[in-house]
Amino acid sequence: MTDEPADTELAIMEATFEAVCKHGYADVTMQDIADEFDKSKSLLHYHHHTKEELFGAFLEHLVDQYEEKLDDLVEGVDSPNERLREFVNWFTVGPEETERTSLHLALLEMRSQAQHNQKVREQFRRSDSLARAAITTLIKEGQAAGSFNPDADAAALAQLCFVTMDGARARQVTVDETGYASEVAETLLELIFEHLDAPGE
Amino acid sequence: MTDEPADTELAIMEATFEAVCKHGYADVTMQDIADEFDKSKSLLHYHHHTKEELFGAFLEHLVDQYEEKLDDLVEGVDSPNERLREFVNWFTVGPEETERTSLHLALLEMRSQAQHNQKVREQFRRSDSLARAAITTLIKEGQAAGSFNPDADAAALAQLCFVTMDGARARQVTVDETGYASEVAETLLELIFEHLDAPGE
Repeated sequence: MTDEPADTELAIMEATFEAVCKHGYADVTMQDIADEFDKSKSLLHYHHHTKEELFGAFLEHLVDQYEEKLDDLVEGVDSPNERLREFVNWFTVGPEETERTSLHLALLEMRSQAQHNQKVREQFRRSDSLARAAITTLIKEGQAAGSFNPDADAAALAQLCFVTMDGARARQVTVDETGYASEVAETLLELIFEHLDAPGE
Repeated sequence: MTDEPADTELAIMEATFEAVCKHGYADVTMQDIADEFDKSKSLLHYHHHTKEELFGAFLEHLVDQYEEKLDDLVEGVDSPNERLREFVNWFTVGPEETERTSLHLALLEMRSQAQHNQKVREQFRRSDSLARAAITTLIKEGQAAGSFNPDADAAALAQLCFVTMDGARARQVTVDETGYASEVAETLLELIFEHLDAPGE
């Protein structure tokens, strides 16, 4: 039974995920989260006193999951070009991915309010650093393998890839234009591969 | 006195601007806007019945201003390279630009809630189209002048420029990292100029 606090915390995170996807971040209440949580509301309040505090923990949980996902993302893909392409295309959100769309909308709301919440801001910085580090590694591996121009600035290109696809995804989920992010991904990859002296396919 | 309704509407837009910069979009109330408005609160309610309706009109007003700004932005700058550089760098927000930072934070909040408000969503699409059209024109003018590779896809590059800098600005205003957007602008311009067979300076 030593896992019980961790199980409870995980159940709270899952309830928060469900509630925020349904109601959005601005409108979601502790009661909405309690409604998704099959244990007592007092247990929720015992673990997290305020919505701000709960959301700091929730975002940390999401970024932990993101970190694991980043490790697996290009598993089994061998060519450096394909690994980079896979990574960049991961940021596109398909029209059928309604839960993922809702989550990214809620994350945008949280981000627009990050200046009020130090812990939330730190987690956004952390997820940004993780994604940039993962792309930097992909590019450096491609350079080491002789597939990419060794003189290119891997960190600067990783920052460009991240911020472009983050912006494209935000644009797509908010104004709901199917295909926007994948169009951007194509142009971005064309310019990146050109800069890396690498064939596009 | 035929200008009175237009003057009143402009005063309402200015009051909304002040209130949203102070309180943010999620938290601002009609009362906060009335507090910034030196005419009567009933006049505000007469013009705009709900916060949603007022914000649809407010965003339209901002996009109108944006459209005028886009026309003037590269006025007096002759070289196609410098015009593109000027445009891309316009998206960076300096740490001293506190009002502009507040406005972009409020716009991000509005955008994250755009799926609930058709008029807001339309205005975001309109501002996106305007910016992309302006960059497309800059690139096509550079192609016509022989400065840029005529085979490059001006519209795709314009979309990339817009979404990258929009994402970089959003990132910078939310996690408050000075210099982030200008670093991204440098890398973006390097790749764009390379693709356009144009010297970077």
